[in-house]
Amino acid sequence: MVASLRLPFVAHLFSSPSTATITGVSRRSPTILRRFPHGLFFRPRLFAAGFSAQSMASETQDRVDNLKNRVPTEVITPRSQDFNAWYLDVIANAELADYGPVRGTMVIRPYGYAIWESIQEYLNVKFKETGHSNMYFLQFIPYSFIEKEASHVEGFSLELAMVTIGGGKELEEKLVVRPTSETIVNHMFTQWIHSYRDLPLMVNQWANVTRWETRTKPFVRTLEFLWQEGHTAHATLEEAENEARQMIDIYIRFAYELAAIPVIAGRKCKVETFAGACKTYTIEAMMGDRKALQAGTSHNLGQNYSRAFGTLFTDENGQRQHVWQTSWAISTRFVGGIIMTHGDDIGLMLPPKLAPTQVVIVPIGKKDDEKVAVLTAASSVKAVLQTAGIKVKLDDSDQRTPGWKFNFWEMKGVPLRIEIGPRDVSSGSVVISRRDVPGKQGKVFGISMEPSVLEAYVKDRLDEIQSSLLERALAFRDSNIVDVSSYEELKVAISEGKWARGPWSASDEDEIKVKEETGATIRCFPFEQPEGVKICLMNGNPAEEVAIFAKSY
Amino acid sequence: MVASLRLPFVAHLFSSPSTATITGVSRRSPTILRRFPHGLFFRPRLFAAGFSAQSMASETQDRVDNLKNRVPTEVITPRSQDFNAWYLDVIANAELADYGPVRGTMVIRPYGYAIWESIQEYLNVKFKETGHSNMYFLQFIPYSFIEKEASHVEGFSLELAMVTIGGGKELEEKLVVRPTSETIVNHMFTQWIHSYRDLPLMVNQWANVTRWETRTKPFVRTLEFLWQEGHTAHATLEEAENEARQMIDIYIRFAYELAAIPVIAGRKCKVETFAGACKTYTIEAMMGDRKALQAGTSHNLGQNYSRAFGTLFTDENGQRQHVWQTSWAISTRFVGGIIMTHGDDIGLMLPPKLAPTQVVIVPIGKKDDEKVAVLTAASSVKAVLQTAGIKVKLDDSDQRTPGWKFNFWEMKGVPLRIEIGPRDVSSGSVVISRRDVPGKQGKVFGISMEPSVLEAYVKDRLDEIQSSLLERALAFRDSNIVDVSSYEELKVAISEGKWARGPWSASDEDEIKVKEETGATIRCFPFEQPEGVKICLMNGNPAEEVAIFAKSY
Repeated sequence: MVASLRLPFVAHLFSSPSTATITGVSRRSPTILRRFPHGLFFRPRLFAAGFSAQSMASETQDRVDNLKNRVPTEVITPRSQDFNAWYLDVIANAELADYGPVRGTMVIRPYGYAIWESIQEYLNVKFKETGHSNMYFLQFIPYSFIEKEASHVEGFSLELAMVTIGGGKELEEKLVVRPTSETIVNHMFTQWIHSYRDLPLMVNQWANVTRWETRTKPFVRTLEFLWQEGHTAHATLEEAENEARQMIDIYIRFAYELAAIPVIAGRKCKVETFAGACKTYTIEAMMGDRKALQAGTSHNLGQNYSRAFGTLFTDENGQRQHVWQTSWAISTRFVGGIIMTHGDDIGLMLPPKLAPTQVVIVPIGKKDDEKVAVLTAASSVKAVLQTAGIKVKLDDSDQRTPGWKFNFWEMKGVPLRIEIGPRDVSSGSVVISRRDVPGKQGKVFGISMEPSVLEAYVKDRLDEIQSSLLERALAFRDSNIVDVSSYEELKVAISEGKWARGPWSASDEDEIKVKEETGATIRCFPFEQPEGVKICLMNGNPAEEVAIFAKSY
Repeated sequence: MVASLRLPFVAHLFSSPSTATITGVSRRSPTILRRFPHGLFFRPRLFAAGFSAQSMASETQDRVDNLKNRVPTEVITPRSQDFNAWYLDVIANAELADYGPVRGTMVIRPYGYAIWESIQEYLNVKFKETGHSNMYFLQFIPYSFIEKEASHVEGFSLELAMVTIGGGKELEEKLVVRPTSETIVNHMFTQWIHSYRDLPLMVNQWANVTRWETRTKPFVRTLEFLWQEGHTAHATLEEAENEARQMIDIYIRFAYELAAIPVIAGRKCKVETFAGACKTYTIEAMMGDRKALQAGTSHNLGQNYSRAFGTLFTDENGQRQHVWQTSWAISTRFVGGIIMTHGDDIGLMLPPKLAPTQVVIVPIGKKDDEKVAVLTAASSVKAVLQTAGIKVKLDDSDQRTPGWKFNFWEMKGVPLRIEIGPRDVSSGSVVISRRDVPGKQGKVFGISMEPSVLEAYVKDRLDEIQSSLLERALAFRDSNIVDVSSYEELKVAISEGKWARGPWSASDEDEIKVKEETGATIRCFPFEQPEGVKICLMNGNPAEEVAIFAKSY
């Protein structure tokens, strides 16, 4: 039964093209079908996959309900077997997100959204500390705005969703649902910026954006996603450059310290630079399948937009000048990055600093008289940890066995589990298990319930797990980056699924050739450069920098 | 010069219909024109007002810059003279919001957004305390969803913005940009709810929504606005009813305790009930012009949506049943309510608990040697207050006189001002002025700089201002509600601009007649009902409740 419920097709629904089409699926179709109905309402060709309708129609409501009594990890495809299937299984089973009824969209469920809220909480403080204010721009952009900046329109024209009807009437000018806000920001900046005294102007918004992507994947690339987009205007190029660097530095610190993701930060090559930017800085993360994920970017926009929109200021000498600008963003894509960096065959593994639940307490006790004592102890342990500022959950439901709960919360990636049984109550101690060290090795018995001891122990372990996740990811990353000095070596590295790092001073055409022949692109010219003479791996000319090549999401 | 810059037309741009049209306004038009360019790009007929293009073309950049050196309050129309003009002037001058380039849209500027953030902060905690989780639904709704619930489509069909083009191609099914999310929520709930064990399901999202309104006004009614929308599903009607009441209670407490707005809460009449709800609860606020503002609503949706979408659960007896639902929302409209409740001729007046800046410190000192001492004292006062958790700003800019700063921060509605001059430094004391008590009366000299004394004094004053704003608004409200026992009395009350409260058991037709003849509608049947026998003011029959009639926004 479990196998028939595994629904292998689920893994392919979101990103794999397919020619199968489902039609005429009624609202009364079995729940199991309704669970993944994207494509049914909209552009079905792209997402409906090749599965048998009969086999699903035979599933009954009861069997679906039974799904809840299985050990949850059994439904997750092993990571080594099919990384993409594993990723989608984790998202579904850990209840991070679900598919929306419009092709390529997702709904972020509470557990996934709570991770996003942790990200927001950290970044919001950093943005404000560095002098930025939150605000909100409108999301509808007159189409003519998009056309004003040449490379901007080129970069986004194929990804636009357009509102053409409002209040029942055809609109005179089509409105673009924002794919990013540089154009509208500049339009507004022209009204707020008059003199050098109005600069720097530094704002940020948390918003939804829409890009009509054809190949989508939950969190990583969806038609609509959430992000923060910072926008600043400065009196000089130098200030704008410092700002762009400052913000990528904030992203780097966030990735290392909070998300435990050892990103490689650097400058994008020309081909990969943001449409309308002079320079794009990026943080690139290595996922568990060794593909690169662009996890955040910061752009020095120069005067490209201010020239297109006439964003001028009067300088201290009374001269009118175009402002220098930046923009920078991190999106819900980062949640995908966390899943794909730390997750394992059991499921999600969350860095303690971003985990919505850092500690789960599972009470163990069958007899009624035992239960009361165990639950009392569990509640007081919960209170102790909560008071200490730890995000703790007591799973005291009667509907599941302790074993089921162990598996469930491991699958959800909760960093620490506290088990309390009747014997623990007698001895005034608890059992603590680490998510990142599976089995007996990660299990420690006899930790005192004494508040100060327990609190200190739990905090130490959470810190340890945080560091351990980063170290592990760092080791994985570094063992999968190969230094190459020739195109041949690069090809070997990429074909082995690794990242290739080598000196590069060749042309855009050569870069495109690499992409065509290997599937890899320049992820960045890293800020951290090796010393010594560098010879371009492609053309043998002197090179100033090494570049990192990888396949990417 | 000030007069010519007063721009009386600004007040009319947003909401008044006009037949004038501006065309051919180039990007190089004077800033003063560019400041309010809505309508220029889109549907100009609705918003471009009857003003002389020549008079504006004669404004130069310098004169605009000079605007910044005027005493800022001079640009605000007296409230008594023209409430709407006053409202728009406050929004523009206090930099709360600006017009977007699409008709009827606005951009929420940092100062206005910070008020919204205060609202979010309070409500988010309350929502989570009462068991709700944040999440995010997609914003594009297949048009067929909207049609599923009959009264829903009727209520919203004229207000929809529709995406018809995606990625350069005509879409097979039009997508509605969410005007509210009940339909998409139900679509998703059908996938998450299986049995009674999945209930109650209680979620909330902070999101943007779009309603193609024809008559707009910043914050109060805009094409796009921000809100939170809670959505819950329950096993019984009683639970849903309790939830709907619980959430309106949270809104009431928020309005009284944080916003110092003495809302009247009650049940909406049938005519004003939300499209698709069984019962709508509302909080109604009396604005400074005595019009009512619907400031928050909570709906008991019954099984209307669950029947339309087939949102079913298996109850404890194994029976399939439709879930009972609620939804509830507060939007950025509330910011408009704060402005229109507390503002005066000077400008904005913010309740301390929602004020982005609670205390502004203005240093006074002309000579260079004085300045250093004054600034040192001001900085240490700032540090003291900041440590005490007070939101404090030190305005130490050299570009403005203290007098200008006094006026500016009063106009921005900052509750308390601390002045520190050379003599204050010598005496180790400061001068403190209350925003809510203008002139000398609100000014107290010689408050000790000693940290504990100063902190206690400031906190007490902030509490006092918070209470005083509520008391004042309450007195204003109560002196403007008239108890009526006949339609004649109702007409008199409404014609005097007041609210009328009287027993009502008449028909929907009678209610529509009242609206047509007086402009007033039933705002609610208040929860607080007078005791005793009630006779309907309209038809003389027995009535169970009094209703409140008022003109509204």
